[in-house]
Amino acid sequence: MKADAAALVEGARAGDRGAVARLISLVESGGPEATEAVARLHPHTGAAYTIGITGAPGAGKSTITDRLIARIRRDGHEVGVLAIDPTSPFTGGAILGDRVRMQEHATDDGVFIRSMATRGHLGGLALATPQALRVLDAAGKPWLIVETVGVGQVEVEIAGSADTTVVVVTPGWGDGVQAAKAGLLEIADVLVVNKADRVGVDDTVRDLTQMLELGGSRPWTPPIVQTVATDNRGVDELFDAIVAHRAFLESDGQLAGRRADRAREELRSIVGARLAAQVGEVCSGPAFDAMVDRVVKREIDPYAAVDALVED
Amino acid sequence: MKADAAALVEGARAGDRGAVARLISLVESGGPEATEAVARLHPHTGAAYTIGITGAPGAGKSTITDRLIARIRRDGHEVGVLAIDPTSPFTGGAILGDRVRMQEHATDDGVFIRSMATRGHLGGLALATPQALRVLDAAGKPWLIVETVGVGQVEVEIAGSADTTVVVVTPGWGDGVQAAKAGLLEIADVLVVNKADRVGVDDTVRDLTQMLELGGSRPWTPPIVQTVATDNRGVDELFDAIVAHRAFLESDGQLAGRRADRAREELRSIVGARLAAQVGEVCSGPAFDAMVDRVVKREIDPYAAVDALVED
Repeated sequence: MKADAAALVEGARAGDRGAVARLISLVESGGPEATEAVARLHPHTGAAYTIGITGAPGAGKSTITDRLIARIRRDGHEVGVLAIDPTSPFTGGAILGDRVRMQEHATDDGVFIRSMATRGHLGGLALATPQALRVLDAAGKPWLIVETVGVGQVEVEIAGSADTTVVVVTPGWGDGVQAAKAGLLEIADVLVVNKADRVGVDDTVRDLTQMLELGGSRPWTPPIVQTVATDNRGVDELFDAIVAHRAFLESDGQLAGRRADRAREELRSIVGARLAAQVGEVCSGPAFDAMVDRVVKREIDPYAAVDALVED
Repeated sequence: MKADAAALVEGARAGDRGAVARLISLVESGGPEATEAVARLHPHTGAAYTIGITGAPGAGKSTITDRLIARIRRDGHEVGVLAIDPTSPFTGGAILGDRVRMQEHATDDGVFIRSMATRGHLGGLALATPQALRVLDAAGKPWLIVETVGVGQVEVEIAGSADTTVVVVTPGWGDGVQAAKAGLLEIADVLVVNKADRVGVDDTVRDLTQMLELGGSRPWTPPIVQTVATDNRGVDELFDAIVAHRAFLESDGQLAGRRADRAREELRSIVGARLAAQVGEVCSGPAFDAMVDRVVKREIDPYAAVDALVED
């Protein structure tokens, strides 16, 4: 049974979890129906606030996500979560203990958790993530969380396109340095040193402070929050820091600027994907093979060959 | 004074070094004149044989290139060299001793050396390299050498698109492993362990042998040649290995297949570059900014916005 996009959008807006799930699958899949769904969703979006959580594998991102969900629920607000981290328990990659803890939220109608596959098509993921967020936004979730492992360009971009980006590191030599190398510090609005009951936390905080100072003065200096997420320590402070950053962005029009940049990037991605599909089309099939053969035989030069292919 | 492409191609084919140099600059620059030059060059190409030399910085690639030039000149053949390695003395990155040695060839009319800048536009380099090789091929050089540092995807691709690809490693723990990680062993037709007078050479040769065996059986097993290029030791053996690989490729039609693959890749690059330029065009300017604004204001959804932009 194939529900049409209009009915799914109506269902999602009315709080039907099944409709939300199916809409996300629909927009992930691409194609004409996805396009129609996005067109119908888009007018109902813009109210949600998106938190990005990123950091190295093992930093405790999903525990922090879990605790943040609980913190937001305490205020009575609903939360939508996208887990793109392949090591996250949400995406099925972690130990049983974590999974069991997540079960709390599984029975909570105010929480919608969706994992997205990273395998194989990260380019597609960069496109699919904003669409999935759009579904959750239109479904009326006031808070959205995107959890990604900050190891690749695309994951860093996805996390960095949130309204507030939280970068998680752990105590220990070099972790902060690694985060800096991966470009994570550049996108951080809030820095978390998780597992702050471990040796080396002061060194890590000092290193991060120095690295931030090297970046020069900026209108917003990312606060460094220490957490022990497994014990729920520091989570309120983290949420307060997120709320403070949100207030900062909203106070001087920066939030609108960020979102315009995001729309700009999204349009670029869509144009890019469309043209990449064209490259694939032009550069395959018997006409292309025949043209390669003519180039090899020196009957035509490569540029003229491309002219001929593109005209067809 | 701006010579036209036709005159430059005629000059280059007649052995005018200035015409060769100016043609390479012309084809590197892109644009309509470059396209015309390529069209005029292409029918006169296909006779040259291209050797790719790649490996980590400090492996001795430029010394090996230097010695191979001398070896080829001993047979009375001319050589064209493209140095894309930013650490190469050809591109001006190395110590004085190397540069002085290169001077020998600078006064030899049978050798044409050209360095190409890697800074900033590696995508452009992937396009420019086959064009520059085309100039040297049309200019009648029977042997071409492309020296690249095998550290990035593009450099590895460029080196791997030669007729015979030589991968240079040095003795020492991990160098062979690093080469394997960087994908260099996959593209190697001939493996060189340079600085073979150093400790650890036997271990490196054994590691490489094992890694090649892991790759399974293939029609051509890359020979492992030990050299001390600074003392000119092993260079004749290296050249013999290259000649043997050439004979192998020519004997069963594989050379034609490789070159067809290369033409295929070149057409793809040209189509890709043309479409990438289109992305840049579509996604800039006041019309694009206005469309972003409309998306942010929810007046239009992103896909419809792209439709409208692409139609314009």
